[in-house]
Amino acid sequence: MLLNPFYIDNLIKNALLEDINYIDCATDYLIPDEQINTAKFIAKADGVLCGIEIALRVFTLLQSDVTYEIFIKDGEKVKSGDIIATITGRTKTLLKGERTALNLLQHMSGIATQTAHCVELIQGTKASIADTRKTLPNLRPIQKYAVTVGGGKNHRYNLSDCAMLKDNHIDAGGGITNAVNTLRGKLGHTVKIEVEVRNLDELNEALTVGADIIMLDNMSPETMAEAVAITDGRALLEASGGITAETIRKVAESGVDIISLGAVTHSVKAFDISMKIQ
Amino acid sequence: MLLNPFYIDNLIKNALLEDINYIDCATDYLIPDEQINTAKFIAKADGVLCGIEIALRVFTLLQSDVTYEIFIKDGEKVKSGDIIATITGRTKTLLKGERTALNLLQHMSGIATQTAHCVELIQGTKASIADTRKTLPNLRPIQKYAVTVGGGKNHRYNLSDCAMLKDNHIDAGGGITNAVNTLRGKLGHTVKIEVEVRNLDELNEALTVGADIIMLDNMSPETMAEAVAITDGRALLEASGGITAETIRKVAESGVDIISLGAVTHSVKAFDISMKIQ
Amino acid sequence: MLLNPFYIDNLIKNALLEDINYIDCATDYLIPDEQINTAKFIAKADGVLCGIEIALRVFTLLQSDVTYEIFIKDGEKVKSGDIIATITGRTKTLLKGERTALNLLQHMSGIATQTAHCVELIQGTKASIADTRKTLPNLRPIQKYAVTVGGGKNHRYNLSDCAMLKDNHIDAGGGITNAVNTLRGKLGHTVKIEVEVRNLDELNEALTVGADIIMLDNMSPETMAEAVAITDGRALLEASGGITAETIRKVAESGVDIISLGAVTHSVKAFDISMKIQ
Amino acid sequence: MLLNPFYIDNLIKNALLEDINYIDCATDYLIPDEQINTAKFIAKADGVLCGIEIALRVFTLLQSDVTYEIFIKDGEKVKSGDIIATITGRTKTLLKGERTALNLLQHMSGIATQTAHCVELIQGTKASIADTRKTLPNLRPIQKYAVTVGGGKNHRYNLSDCAMLKDNHIDAGGGITNAVNTLRGKLGHTVKIEVEVRNLDELNEALTVGADIIMLDNMSPETMAEAVAITDGRALLEASGGITAETIRKVAESGVDIISLGAVTHSVKAFDISMKIQ
Amino acid sequence: MLLNPFYIDNLIKNALLEDINYIDCATDYLIPDEQINTAKFIAKADGVLCGIEIALRVFTLLQSDVTYEIFIKDGEKVKSGDIIATITGRTKTLLKGERTALNLLQHMSGIATQTAHCVELIQGTKASIADTRKTLPNLRPIQKYAVTVGGGKNHRYNLSDCAMLKDNHIDAGGGITNAVNTLRGKLGHTVKIEVEVRNLDELNEALTVGADIIMLDNMSPETMAEAVAITDGRALLEASGGITAETIRKVAESGVDIISLGAVTHSVKAFDISMKIQ
Amino acid sequence: MLLNPFYIDNLIKNALLEDINYIDCATDYLIPDEQINTAKFIAKADGVLCGIEIALRVFTLLQSDVTYEIFIKDGEKVKSGDIIATITGRTKTLLKGERTALNLLQHMSGIATQTAHCVELIQGTKASIADTRKTLPNLRPIQKYAVTVGGGKNHRYNLSDCAMLKDNHIDAGGGITNAVNTLRGKLGHTVKIEVEVRNLDELNEALTVGADIIMLDNMSPETMAEAVAITDGRALLEASGGITAETIRKVAESGVDIISLGAVTHSVKAFDISMKIQ
Repeated sequence: MLLNPFYIDNLIKNALLEDINYIDCATDYLIPDEQINTAKFIAKADGVLCGIEIALRVFTLLQSDVTYEIFIKDGEKVKSGDIIATITGRTKTLLKGERTALNLLQHMSGIATQTAHCVELIQGTKASIADTRKTLPNLRPIQKYAVTVGGGKNHRYNLSDCAMLKDNHIDAGGGITNAVNTLRGKLGHTVKIEVEVRNLDELNEALTVGADIIMLDNMSPETMAEAVAITDGRALLEASGGITAETIRKVAESGVDIISLGAVTHSVKAFDISMKIQ
Repeated sequence: MLLNPFYIDNLIKNALLEDINYIDCATDYLIPDEQINTAKFIAKADGVLCGIEIALRVFTLLQSDVTYEIFIKDGEKVKSGDIIATITGRTKTLLKGERTALNLLQHMSGIATQTAHCVELIQGTKASIADTRKTLPNLRPIQKYAVTVGGGKNHRYNLSDCAMLKDNHIDAGGGITNAVNTLRGKLGHTVKIEVEVRNLDELNEALTVGADIIMLDNMSPETMAEAVAITDGRALLEASGGITAETIRKVAESGVDIISLGAVTHSVKAFDISMKIQ
Repeated sequence: MLLNPFYIDNLIKNALLEDINYIDCATDYLIPDEQINTAKFIAKADGVLCGIEIALRVFTLLQSDVTYEIFIKDGEKVKSGDIIATITGRTKTLLKGERTALNLLQHMSGIATQTAHCVELIQGTKASIADTRKTLPNLRPIQKYAVTVGGGKNHRYNLSDCAMLKDNHIDAGGGITNAVNTLRGKLGHTVKIEVEVRNLDELNEALTVGADIIMLDNMSPETMAEAVAITDGRALLEASGGITAETIRKVAESGVDIISLGAVTHSVKAFDISMKIQ
Repeated sequence: MLLNPFYIDNLIKNALLEDINYIDCATDYLIPDEQINTAKFIAKADGVLCGIEIALRVFTLLQSDVTYEIFIKDGEKVKSGDIIATITGRTKTLLKGERTALNLLQHMSGIATQTAHCVELIQGTKASIADTRKTLPNLRPIQKYAVTVGGGKNHRYNLSDCAMLKDNHIDAGGGITNAVNTLRGKLGHTVKIEVEVRNLDELNEALTVGADIIMLDNMSPETMAEAVAITDGRALLEASGGITAETIRKVAESGVDIISLGAVTHSVKAFDISMKIQ
Repeated sequence: MLLNPFYIDNLIKNALLEDINYIDCATDYLIPDEQINTAKFIAKADGVLCGIEIALRVFTLLQSDVTYEIFIKDGEKVKSGDIIATITGRTKTLLKGERTALNLLQHMSGIATQTAHCVELIQGTKASIADTRKTLPNLRPIQKYAVTVGGGKNHRYNLSDCAMLKDNHIDAGGGITNAVNTLRGKLGHTVKIEVEVRNLDELNEALTVGADIIMLDNMSPETMAEAVAITDGRALLEASGGITAETIRKVAESGVDIISLGAVTHSVKAFDISMKIQ
Repeated sequence: MLLNPFYIDNLIKNALLEDINYIDCATDYLIPDEQINTAKFIAKADGVLCGIEIALRVFTLLQSDVTYEIFIKDGEKVKSGDIIATITGRTKTLLKGERTALNLLQHMSGIATQTAHCVELIQGTKASIADTRKTLPNLRPIQKYAVTVGGGKNHRYNLSDCAMLKDNHIDAGGGITNAVNTLRGKLGHTVKIEVEVRNLDELNEALTVGADIIMLDNMSPETMAEAVAITDGRALLEASGGITAETIRKVAESGVDIISLGAVTHSVKAFDISMKIQ
């Protein structure tokens, strides 16, 4: 598993504290301790799977000796009806972990599937799909991971690791040139500077001062194509704002390097997966 | 604000630790400390607002003396272009809190809007819309609150506060009758017992043993109508499973009391709101 | 173990951080690492045992390969002199965990024993004993669990999962009828409504509006008997307030369904158990 | 307030998260936001008050501008009927904080009252009452504080700040003399060494090696008097084990310095206080 | 203050819980609550100040209405004898916060002073000083901040925000060229790739594949100068390993862009500052 | 390991969350999961080792089945070139844990080495070296442990477990005699009282009132020798303030019992250790 295991364990434990509270009153009072069972995770739709190791970790944390087999891994395509994994443990364990495991698995697979769909739409162009900071509190790691599993790339993780200059920064900094130069005097050498531009004049200024990345904010595909020509590889160009399934290919064909999409993390359709206890 | 203030403050602080990390490298190095500004929250779509007090709390936690005015409150309808609220504080505060505030506000308003849409679809029937445990880790309180703001009702919060008997519980408990009787001997008097039934025979057994709530699992509207007639007010009937915008009204017209929908919390489309710093 | 394992582990770890701080200065400097020992938990009084698995979990968390045998389980009667369990591990582990394990075990067994005593006092009546929210911070789960182990039932866990209407709620809500109706329009279908009444007029109003549970506040057993007759099964009746060992049977014989007692959790006499290291 | 304010705030916030969960469903749906009220804390018994500032802090954390007046302070005697304090704030605030405030106040006043009673029983002797490590998880600070408010003294707080040698330590350390000498070579100069002795021979050995404190374990008052004579001020003598209200004065009159009592913290009878909202 | 306020507050609260535990037994029992005092922070050495706002925050968290005046700000030079700030509050507050405030202030000023010294040593060259990940647990934010206050730059914050390829990465990745190309296919566009090289052949390979930053590991100043000539601005060059006060200027004069130094954070000499309560 | 395991695990987990964030972007994308490797910890200097079990615990927490061998234990002398330990696990595990393990090990060995050096300087005198509260937030346990490993002793851990009277306490308490007597009436019997004195008059007063420990603040070795003669064993004498490597032996030879040194924890030079992955 790529993600930090301490983050994952904390996330799962907090989810189970939230979901179970002090007892699972149906399960604890009805299911015998010693009853063992096997459950199957079954896809109910077509897409890209994400989060199966995390989903299974839910059960391992509840009962350290559960056993499982994974048939479809993160990043693999899955079709409705496919068995993703089986897990064997106490029935109590399976029932208590079911909802939390599915909530994580469906959310992450939803992100991976949506991302993969966008990636497919721009296939053959040089653009890549990137996520944004439009994520949910404390879920950014699993959301960003799911984007990569779907074939997308991660934009900056937080406000410390990349500088993005918007209107207010540029105005306060005395224009693009001054703002970038000021920042360069303060930022560490690993931190890139991205400048948001609204027109080709601003683009030229950003290029001249040597911005690493330039965000083309709400431009038409035609203007973006012009921007690509002007830039000629001197900076990475990122398209952002109001891009939909209908327009994304046009945007990609303009020649930009990155298309960033808030929707892949802020508007997630859960990917339908069921857990069937035998 | 209805929600527990300590939960909200923890949620926001963790979100800001995640989003800012140690510095906001663009803002901290470019924006003067003393610069004051006003920002407007502006709707970019039509729907039901939710989360404005929480969004503003983000800024109050960053700077205790920000001031704000709320024009549209939680639960009120909002139209694209409406100014929801204005807030005045340091530009630094506004920039650092913007993303976290919007992430919360857009998610919560998305839930409220989707719920309100479902409520509208069944208007005039006796059914109400309820949420489920299909929520995201640590976000259950704000998600469930948003459902109520959209006109829905909250199903049980966790596994301790209501017993729901599914196949495995019923099998292990020796059938519906035995399982319910066993549970009744253990559960506190404030905890309701809900039984999931797949056909009218099971419904009859659940009614006879006095289940408080009966979930009609994946039944056709016609069978539900029969179930309503048989039940005749002896228990609350909850429809669940595979209900879509197309079928929901039919389901409601069958006479069931509650229609529970996972989608209102597990598949949320962010409601578009922008924050404009002047 | 019924209780949420993450709650239990957090509770124990925090207790050991509080009790040990950075070193156990006598044990760490005097006892050789490799010394192994066996300890016995021995009852010093008669009662109902509760918390043995939690007490043993203290040692497992300190040393994952301790071994133990349990002779008396939660809920079983125990007599002075009985050996409850034996545990084998490093002497260091036994000494470091001893106090925390006993503090938990004695408190929980104290609650179970007191509850069992009350249950015995009302044997043969239809009433059951329930706890209250009069618990100690962060100990509610183990306190409520111990009540069930002693034969009692759990009242609501928190303010979200059952509505109890007291004077102030009723006054603000415009009387019992209006308050209950208002609430019913807002609460989820799994949440019961309990109304506190001070006389039979209020009881009648609460019954008419269909309250699920009615608390008879500080009534005489005679009035309670009248209340039972009036109610005739239309609602659950809960007796509360000023009930002592002397009066409890009288109260139970009035025919009420539940007798709630704060004392079983707020005034706990530790049940004497010693841990003898050989 | 003597206690560490960060500990207190964490304790209260966790208690309110436990007690309220996400909403207070009766209060939030029935009481108008703007309704203001005053509540009185009224004693229902005679004793020593403890915890009033902490109880009021509950409300301040819920609503920063509540106002209050304290009539009886921590450590003062209180009689049934006395008004301890009044507090004014939103009715919502008062209702949400009531249970948590009373749970803390009644527990702490219970400890102070019990301790004061023991102190009274030994008045005129040179002995003082001390607590033990027989406390409840995460409550040790408020329990130990309450003991001092009742006129008792605090024994060691944790296993790092004082070395107490029991059987196992002494055996592993090669007898009292060797064990104490070994420890003295390792412990910091602020840490006292206490030795538990079962007879006068062991007492003599402990005195000879210069133990700071000697615990007389389960000795008769007569033997203790002998021990006092032998010791003649060379060490502090602590009586411990099986001391009851009946025997405590006898023990004190033997001339020991400290009588340590687990019961003042492990078997607390809540002190009855009510909160009356007008 | 640049640093994330929630991080700072958590850091301070945890430090005070560690340092005070439940009471400050000298202060709480001897100093009257109402006693007010003023304290001065006085430098006892020459250097660069860092952390004064954080040090004062310690007192504000203990008592919200303390007042203070800052005479020397973060980043300003300070001489032995200078008064850095004065603070007025309860004597109790001053005594309880003193040690924690000084521990933070002295450590941060130590880092800033050491960094400033290194910056001075290379003045006039184009090189800048950078920190490393050789920091202390949970102190990375204040340590990295102090480096910038001393005139240094921050290297990457963590393993997510910049890829540094060492031997093992390069071997597993199939050589520098393959490894960098593989990574580029996976990393987001904001993440720079740094390659550690041990000789000029490796340098050439890293340049050819377009590494953003190249670390010259333990090279002599002469070899570094060659590397600078070869690189000719195509990548940032970072000198690292075994650089001391004696050699640093030579290294800088080789023309490298960055000199990274573990010592500024892992071997900090506390900067002597006293707090004098009047 | 002497230290509280829950403290250690929390410390390591937080360090790894800080250092890795969500992924280790070089390691996770380049190193195959199944690759196994062995690493050696090699000393690069001479000194006293401290923290090897904690350093290895970093890897065990990342991967429960790593194996290791320890050649040099905490408290043993180590020479440049010595292999301290070897560890075998996944290459990924070794790379992710390396920095955190070394940061802890180098800091702790640095403290132990510095302390051992001071201990050596005073060998043959009766004085022992003690630490102070001049530690870093949340690192006090490992810092104080490292002092003992280097042959030093721990001064009080926090403000609750020993009373130290400084100017302000003495003034507020009405002079040394009154202050000590007041405190003795309040403090538990396990808490020692230390008085800071500036001259021999104050020393005499402190001795007369029976202070347990007396701190000789910034006195010359000659005055200290006089103090030792006057005291004649009636109290422990602690030298403190402005003691350097040059003066420490003189101080020790004055006959004081304890020399407390802030520098061993506040100004730590990391002890150079490398981790070599094969």
